[in-house]
Amino acid sequence: MGLRGIDHIAIAVEDLDAATAFWRDVLGLREGAREQVESQGVTVQMMHAGDTRVELLHPSGPDTPVGRHLARRGPGLHHLALAVDDCALALERAGAAGVRRINEEPLPGAHGTRVAFLHPSGTGGVLTELVAGGE
Amino acid sequence: MGLRGIDHIAIAVEDLDAATAFWRDVLGLREGAREQVESQGVTVQMMHAGDTRVELLHPSGPDTPVGRHLARRGPGLHHLALAVDDCALALERAGAAGVRRINEEPLPGAHGTRVAFLHPSGTGGVLTELVAGGE
Repeated sequence: MGLRGIDHIAIAVEDLDAATAFWRDVLGLREGAREQVESQGVTVQMMHAGDTRVELLHPSGPDTPVGRHLARRGPGLHHLALAVDDCALALERAGAAGVRRINEEPLPGAHGTRVAFLHPSGTGGVLTELVAGGE
Repeated sequence: MGLRGIDHIAIAVEDLDAATAFWRDVLGLREGAREQVESQGVTVQMMHAGDTRVELLHPSGPDTPVGRHLARRGPGLHHLALAVDDCALALERAGAAGVRRINEEPLPGAHGTRVAFLHPSGTGGVLTELVAGGE
């Protein structure tokens, strides 16, 4: 896998400005960059917590993965992202272990990363992102 | 708050041995200590990922916080734990900011820590643990 650690934990939010203010002012995380990720239909607000990050996700519309998650489960924890050396290799190894994958190939993620998702049905209910590269 | 970073991300699991093997063998996390935490009605399996940790949670029975979570939402992401310098102080500050708290005072957590939880209704749907001390 070449696991480096936890890249971020992502939270689906209904109001991005309010959530940014809450995690910054009440819980003390440092506000990072905000970026629209077209391939995922989402705006991403990074919040730094020591060496790790919380990623606040706001959908571009209801018919997006995060929009459907909000409608079905409400706001809250959305996915766990693991930092790996090589996204394609990690994805291939997960597939070889019989884990159901959402993406067969890495996609462009926020901030120049390469990302792919494993399906919650293959991971004990945790939508799991594999992230490589980037800043 | 005295925020240090993300202490761990916790996952509710139905089969602790199977989940431990999955996160270790398929995703490459390092297996850490297993401990029963009586005050929370849960067995905790720590899994190390770089400098951060994933905490696998298995309930002692159905009438526990994690047991009820499994029955209601199924296995998956359970809570986010932030490492703070002083749990009582962080809890007091969250309360002063109007955030609903589950615990009014810190409780003993796994591995000698002091912990307290903020209610999801006050945090945008994220059960949030404040952790201080320990190893």
